[in-house]
Amino acid sequence: MSAMTMNVDATNPDLVTVGVPTHWYNLAAELDVPIPPHLHPGTKEPVGPEDLVALFPAGLIAQEVSTEPYIEIPDPVREIYRMWRPSPLIRARRFEEALNTKARIYVKYEGVSPVGSHKTNSAVAQAYYNSIDGVRKLTTETGAGQWGSALAFAGAQFGIDIEVWQVRASYDSKPYRGHLIRTYGGTLHPSPSDLTESGRAMLAKNPDTTGSLGMAVSEAVEVAAGDPDTRYALGSVLNHVVLHQSVIGVEAVDQLNAVEPGGADVVFGCAGGGSNLAGLSFPFLREKIHGRSNPRVVAAEPAACPSITEGEYRYDHGDVAGLTPLLKMHTLGMDFVPDPIHAGGLRYHGMAPALSHTVELGLVQGVAISQHDAFSAGVQFARTQGIVPAPESTHAIAACAAHVADSDKEEVVVIGLSGHGQLDLPAYAEFLDGKF
Amino acid sequence: MSAMTMNVDATNPDLVTVGVPTHWYNLAAELDVPIPPHLHPGTKEPVGPEDLVALFPAGLIAQEVSTEPYIEIPDPVREIYRMWRPSPLIRARRFEEALNTKARIYVKYEGVSPVGSHKTNSAVAQAYYNSIDGVRKLTTETGAGQWGSALAFAGAQFGIDIEVWQVRASYDSKPYRGHLIRTYGGTLHPSPSDLTESGRAMLAKNPDTTGSLGMAVSEAVEVAAGDPDTRYALGSVLNHVVLHQSVIGVEAVDQLNAVEPGGADVVFGCAGGGSNLAGLSFPFLREKIHGRSNPRVVAAEPAACPSITEGEYRYDHGDVAGLTPLLKMHTLGMDFVPDPIHAGGLRYHGMAPALSHTVELGLVQGVAISQHDAFSAGVQFARTQGIVPAPESTHAIAACAAHVADSDKEEVVVIGLSGHGQLDLPAYAEFLDGKF
Repeated sequence: MSAMTMNVDATNPDLVTVGVPTHWYNLAAELDVPIPPHLHPGTKEPVGPEDLVALFPAGLIAQEVSTEPYIEIPDPVREIYRMWRPSPLIRARRFEEALNTKARIYVKYEGVSPVGSHKTNSAVAQAYYNSIDGVRKLTTETGAGQWGSALAFAGAQFGIDIEVWQVRASYDSKPYRGHLIRTYGGTLHPSPSDLTESGRAMLAKNPDTTGSLGMAVSEAVEVAAGDPDTRYALGSVLNHVVLHQSVIGVEAVDQLNAVEPGGADVVFGCAGGGSNLAGLSFPFLREKIHGRSNPRVVAAEPAACPSITEGEYRYDHGDVAGLTPLLKMHTLGMDFVPDPIHAGGLRYHGMAPALSHTVELGLVQGVAISQHDAFSAGVQFARTQGIVPAPESTHAIAACAAHVADSDKEEVVVIGLSGHGQLDLPAYAEFLDGKF
Repeated sequence: MSAMTMNVDATNPDLVTVGVPTHWYNLAAELDVPIPPHLHPGTKEPVGPEDLVALFPAGLIAQEVSTEPYIEIPDPVREIYRMWRPSPLIRARRFEEALNTKARIYVKYEGVSPVGSHKTNSAVAQAYYNSIDGVRKLTTETGAGQWGSALAFAGAQFGIDIEVWQVRASYDSKPYRGHLIRTYGGTLHPSPSDLTESGRAMLAKNPDTTGSLGMAVSEAVEVAAGDPDTRYALGSVLNHVVLHQSVIGVEAVDQLNAVEPGGADVVFGCAGGGSNLAGLSFPFLREKIHGRSNPRVVAAEPAACPSITEGEYRYDHGDVAGLTPLLKMHTLGMDFVPDPIHAGGLRYHGMAPALSHTVELGLVQGVAISQHDAFSAGVQFARTQGIVPAPESTHAIAACAAHVADSDKEEVVVIGLSGHGQLDLPAYAEFLDGKF
């Protein structure tokens, strides 16, 4: 008897991996009603490629308006995806038991990426398309730091300098992801900063501001627009970001089909800017559109920043200074700043136009989750499944728990676990101390 | 063409997974010379099971002195291992390129566990054997917090309360793993504390002490010995811990054989208490003993705590107060306290008797690595491979880098990456700021 045959059991029924996708999926190309176009902030006419070249490379501009349902993932991007993809789909049996439910809960876990979140899926693609256009530096904004650290990692892979403006509230209270950005070789500033016109104007107006993603976007866009070798990278909201994140759902659909031939009944994801939920859910909506299954998609957003459930669906800027195109989206208004007590990420005032569009079409429903309920579900998940979820992800877990607890219904549900929360443990400590 | 066939490429040549082992491997049972027995601290005679029952459950005592080469992993333990095992073996191609080497570097990555380190491998087993003996509470010590958080996770799985004494230096400077312990439901104290005789005596002697693992062991042992429903759990050093960690190497040998039929030429691991390196390397030494390959094993230890390279091989206590059995090991003396500037974990004064024994037999060689060289290698690894290594693991990476850099030798080398360093990012920031 060899050691090989004796010591190994090749089956792990609770862990499903299939393979690394070869194509991203573009749901918009398969919808009868197109996504309303972005508008030029000056002319209010639909933006053309020429309006975007100061900010984005050609490959991403083409993806922003693509009508192809499948877009091939370039080999250099897939090569880097292979460092952690396919991410696992995990049957959460212990969490099911704790919830006393007959639902079968599957968790699609993006926390295995180098920075611990889904953000790398788009960061790597964006760094790649910029690198083939000869871009030397990328600027960006970040909130809790998930996106900034993802882009810093991606920049290190393609030899691009990364400069990050981080929302002041997170910069001060969550220093670890700032260290991570620097470890990857990136440069970090709190936002608003005195390095830009936008930042100085905001500080003059409100010196004690804790910042917002909209403010940080303005600063990063301003610096990119002023330097021909520099471009800007956005971590959510835009169509090309949503496209890159579809790698999550493309994998998840195949992984789920391998163990649940009927597919998903409900898909839960957290929604801030929307790219995580869109990336997970759009390939499930593909299955619905093509009649292969009939999943419901739930967007779990924080009660402190409820753009889908309480915002308006209208054209709005993506930033505070009004430098970005106008986007048709669910928005709380470009000046919206969530309460600083809010620790759960998902602080953006708007919602990805692609996701907002599916909400309007009735394909996605929003639900608002309180911070207390979110962290309570996060602790229960950590104690049963071991993984401490990112605060963002706890919103999806809480929404799922409320739906399936004490239910006899044998549903198949999928939770998008967009990242781990190891760098957000102070927020867990505050929750355990009863502060919210 | 279905979405399934179109979107998925099932091969990922840089990521190897085989299966979850069914047995732990006990190298000691296959050595001609037995490991010297532990001695009773009072009589100086070899300890018998009756000497250990106040501290450990029957299942672990049996493993401590087992002469069986293979010990079956109980189903409830394997079920939990399946949450993250098999851990991946990753071909580190980008790191190879950065080192300009023809060596093929494979990384066995334990950072995918719920707490981000290899410590869960033994924590789960120890919690299980205690649970079947009806134990209600486990006490333990922890340094940087890897072991304490692993045991807190494991306790949550088996309904056992966990009480942790953490070395004061880490308690103060690395609060995140303390939050993690609490998130899993554990209780945390800095050590030395005023909760034990040992702790009060140490504080009386040196009120400003930053603590040591030996001190924290004394406190945890004292509390366990005084309560019939409480037992003690040790995260390294003892034979049963080394046994549990063999799951790392059992997997790694099979994973490597799947892509490198000649096996490993050199295996690098970091060594503090020794369980990580022993767990990784002993199954490779099994291959050597049975003539299937001929790997060299290198124990990378910090220059600040060099028990193998500068310690004596003699009987010594595992703790400061002299409550534990005498262990035959490489030791710097039970009073040794590393310089507080040392951020790299691996602070224990002794080395696992099982590993010390293989050093004496010439099967393992020690090498001391400076903190600067360790973190320098860690940053290089992070920028190339994405994963920020645990400070402990950076010692193994640095030892490997020094061995293979600019080499034309087509060696197959394996690095034990015992965990990720996301909760150790302040130490990376200090390194980037030039503080060491």
